[in-house]
Amino acid sequence: MAVGEGTLGRLHPVAGVRLATVSAGIKKPGRKDLVLMELAESAVAASVFTRNAFCAAPVTVAREHLRAAEGRPRYLLINTGNANAGTGQPGIEAARTCASAVAAAAKVAPCQVLPFSTGVIGEPLPVALIEAAIPAAFAALTSDGWADAATGIMTTDTRPKGCSLHFHAEGRDYVITGIAKGAGMIRPNMATMLAYIATDMAVSPQLLQQLLAGAVETTFNRITVDGDTSTNDACVLVATGAAGNPVVDDAGSALSEALRSALEEVCLALAQGLVRDGEGASKFVSVQVNGGGVEQECLDVAFTIAHSPLVKTALFASDPNWGRLLAAIGRAGLERLEVDKVDVYLNDVLIASGGCRATSYTEAQGVAAMAPSDIVIRVELNRGDHSATVWTTDFSYDYVRINAEYRT
Amino acid sequence: MAVGEGTLGRLHPVAGVRLATVSAGIKKPGRKDLVLMELAESAVAASVFTRNAFCAAPVTVAREHLRAAEGRPRYLLINTGNANAGTGQPGIEAARTCASAVAAAAKVAPCQVLPFSTGVIGEPLPVALIEAAIPAAFAALTSDGWADAATGIMTTDTRPKGCSLHFHAEGRDYVITGIAKGAGMIRPNMATMLAYIATDMAVSPQLLQQLLAGAVETTFNRITVDGDTSTNDACVLVATGAAGNPVVDDAGSALSEALRSALEEVCLALAQGLVRDGEGASKFVSVQVNGGGVEQECLDVAFTIAHSPLVKTALFASDPNWGRLLAAIGRAGLERLEVDKVDVYLNDVLIASGGCRATSYTEAQGVAAMAPSDIVIRVELNRGDHSATVWTTDFSYDYVRINAEYRT
Repeated sequence: MAVGEGTLGRLHPVAGVRLATVSAGIKKPGRKDLVLMELAESAVAASVFTRNAFCAAPVTVAREHLRAAEGRPRYLLINTGNANAGTGQPGIEAARTCASAVAAAAKVAPCQVLPFSTGVIGEPLPVALIEAAIPAAFAALTSDGWADAATGIMTTDTRPKGCSLHFHAEGRDYVITGIAKGAGMIRPNMATMLAYIATDMAVSPQLLQQLLAGAVETTFNRITVDGDTSTNDACVLVATGAAGNPVVDDAGSALSEALRSALEEVCLALAQGLVRDGEGASKFVSVQVNGGGVEQECLDVAFTIAHSPLVKTALFASDPNWGRLLAAIGRAGLERLEVDKVDVYLNDVLIASGGCRATSYTEAQGVAAMAPSDIVIRVELNRGDHSATVWTTDFSYDYVRINAEYRT
Repeated sequence: MAVGEGTLGRLHPVAGVRLATVSAGIKKPGRKDLVLMELAESAVAASVFTRNAFCAAPVTVAREHLRAAEGRPRYLLINTGNANAGTGQPGIEAARTCASAVAAAAKVAPCQVLPFSTGVIGEPLPVALIEAAIPAAFAALTSDGWADAATGIMTTDTRPKGCSLHFHAEGRDYVITGIAKGAGMIRPNMATMLAYIATDMAVSPQLLQQLLAGAVETTFNRITVDGDTSTNDACVLVATGAAGNPVVDDAGSALSEALRSALEEVCLALAQGLVRDGEGASKFVSVQVNGGGVEQECLDVAFTIAHSPLVKTALFASDPNWGRLLAAIGRAGLERLEVDKVDVYLNDVLIASGGCRATSYTEAQGVAAMAPSDIVIRVELNRGDHSATVWTTDFSYDYVRINAEYRT
């Protein structure tokens, strides 16, 4: 069961980007498991990668290539079915071989091709299968390939995630389109997630990186399904420059502000889409913590709640177990926390106050508040002016089933 | 299903301690839910409590009373079925009232009675029911009441936990007996656990506290079921002095060393018993991390593995998913971790080395290593001489069921 938002909306083409999604037969014959993205020569790319020390081979190679290409890649090659992680030096060679195969076919430098992989950890990447599928991928490139690509990068995701916007600034129309995949191993500092976002605006590499880092911090880095950080996470933002505007380099400019706003909207939609499709998710939970002395303590409380297996199983049971919420707040490590000042709300129903059940609260209110699939847990620390929100899911039988059976 | 070790062994009486276990009807009529421990006038007590900021009312009152009584309590009153946590000032009053009722019956000061509670959070403690059962508790006091008390303090535990040893030092025989309850919300810094241990040795309050803190650090603080720290945890160590030895005050003495060794054995047996009876546990998992530069980084890696839902669901599936182990090690936050140097073993089978699957490893070996209910995950960091071990369980359907249905 998923806490869905329905079907993928229309994903607008972005001038300067073409995509192809084909079948390489990596894990299952016939599954469309290989995505090729082609970027215009004018494009620049920014990126954020996993902070896991055991990062996957393609992450290492993509980082190297992006640096060598001075932020101007021409192709992104993404396979599912195999993460090429925990594969040592042979894995690095495999990622390089795939990139080189694309480069040879397109007559570009190997460093202009960025490889990405997602799927099972620790199996050798079937390089020959991928190489064999590359001609078909080139033949299938189309500017209208975003929706197929959103499906092609899925692993345990139950549906594709994408978001696309038109926006207007200083007399010109722009577009931004993004796709992403989850769905377990989701946690801050890049989740098990791959996200590819492109705009036709012309932006300097430095500003693009700054905008991406800022948007990721308040969107992708604020979602968690199970607290596990993947070895393969990557988020790439491309600015093709096809809109023809003068290159934007000033973070204070109107164009930069317009892109920042549109990018945050896309990243938030994708991030929340990942949570809604989290493994086994039956609830979409916003944990909003207000009144902190600093933002970090709001995040500490929010993530402690969001990671608590006891809170998550109570959410699965639609049980307004405010005691488990108080217990999670109490172990979040806040110095000199005055528990008597803390208020806890479930969907605007005050459930706990003064360190105990709110006097106005009735169990019937709590049960009603827990009934919808979208739940807001709001904590008022009442010790400052800072706030933070993270998004998460419940912990269900299906989470256990999916992750106990993943390799079988 | 539990990963059991069979029945409770014989729990030897400790001279200077009598126990009674009776029914107060707190949650279920007829359930023996109230334990009274009586200590000799000569007894001293040491204690360790939860570090959760939302500590339960009885924790607050027990701390106050123990201080006021200068570490010489005469009675411990323990109820299950209701944690008296998240109950605010009325909860404090309720705990005090229960202690006073025992004190009045025994003609001691209220501060010589320590209250403890475990069970559902946030419900008012049914003080009248407890008061009404106190005369029956006094009437039932017996030195041979340890086994009944081990059962009386259970909540979601499937069986009682106890451990009892005779030991000999400097020409005298001593005894140490302990009981404990789990079984979810288990995590370092005191788990959801209550533990009561007594010896007949005469020991100074200072040394007793030092010995308890040391034993807890390497036993109870190294177990985790779900990472949730309870609001009610408490561990009490009593030295009755009934053995008649001169009071031990020197940590370097032979008697202190003998007690330290026996106490660690009891605490380790109780702690591992809690894990074996962890909610929904089908595996008993030792996570041993060697070769760390400092002990803390060994603990960081061990707890990251032990808390990873992806590792825990793989353990439930008996899936030798070394990729999830590498991913957990990689996100443990170790600075300058050289992933190529890390070796990972499952029950002495080398499964990962050099950042990837070990060349000698076969899936058949891994499946065989995962088949038993007792699993050792050993990580060799190869960057120093420090080690640490923690004990945990897998994540099963039953964990979700137990915690989704707990209040129903």
